[in-house]
Amino acid sequence: MLALGIDPGVAITGYGLVAGPADDARLVASGTITTPSTLSLSRRLLVVHDELAGLIARYQPQVAAVEELFFGRNARTALAVGHGRGVALLTLAEAGLDIHEYTPMQVKQAVVGYGRATKEQVQEMIRLLLHLEAVPQPDDAADAVAVAFCHLQSARLGALLRSIKDLG
Amino acid sequence: MLALGIDPGVAITGYGLVAGPADDARLVASGTITTPSTLSLSRRLLVVHDELAGLIARYQPQVAAVEELFFGRNARTALAVGHGRGVALLTLAEAGLDIHEYTPMQVKQAVVGYGRATKEQVQEMIRLLLHLEAVPQPDDAADAVAVAFCHLQSARLGALLRSIKDLG
Repeated sequence: MLALGIDPGVAITGYGLVAGPADDARLVASGTITTPSTLSLSRRLLVVHDELAGLIARYQPQVAAVEELFFGRNARTALAVGHGRGVALLTLAEAGLDIHEYTPMQVKQAVVGYGRATKEQVQEMIRLLLHLEAVPQPDDAADAVAVAFCHLQSARLGALLRSIKDLG
Repeated sequence: MLALGIDPGVAITGYGLVAGPADDARLVASGTITTPSTLSLSRRLLVVHDELAGLIARYQPQVAAVEELFFGRNARTALAVGHGRGVALLTLAEAGLDIHEYTPMQVKQAVVGYGRATKEQVQEMIRLLLHLEAVPQPDDAADAVAVAFCHLQSARLGALLRSIKDLG
């Protein structure tokens, strides 16, 4: 199973493609889609849409994982991120991907085994679990890889639970 | 000039198609795109996208006007509206429309001539200016008609200003 993780935004959208299963996961690609601030908001969203659709066409992932976001901070930031997140979700749905959303706590739990882990701990575990020489750069790409891995882990646990139920 | 006004959202997106010029404006169509809460967020965004694209294909507007939103209220609401607004802006950009954004104050100024007008005053002026028997329903549709009219008014004032400059 190839999972596409997305850390959505308008200026910068992180992506990470991780091939499962979780206990033998492999990083296929990671990076960012960036849009220049000189473009209008709608043009920037068009770039996010078209580049993300291009990635999906190229790598043909079966599932997508996106972080659920909570903003204690700032309604203005939340609105801006919502624009990018809405376009990302639309693009994934257009491609017929199976879409899953995970909270930051679920991602930390899946990667580090501890829901209150730091960003650095998550990144270091991702490096170890995927046998990488360095943490994917920048942070947006690393976050996207983490949420993709979170989905693989969650799918593996779900399958284990089902097989235990079937045995019982 | 046919202007498409949009009041974006995920559950309900208002639209209004107003033919200009502003001093002889005519309502062509108005209504809402609604999405059931039983669908996943990404499916709902797909409905918004496809229905909005269908409206554009049917009515062939040249310009689109969308309200700029400010949320003092709630980051959670802002994120949710951002999803719908991002998809609406993307859909307008995909169709190659000329997209304009107006603040609520600009809409009130254009329709009522007073930036702090009430919602009821805006709706009543829209009814009078467009020679309608009743205010478009529901509120989301009325808001979308108002922002479309705002654009026609702003385009007319822009053209007037340019002609005065050319004379001077």
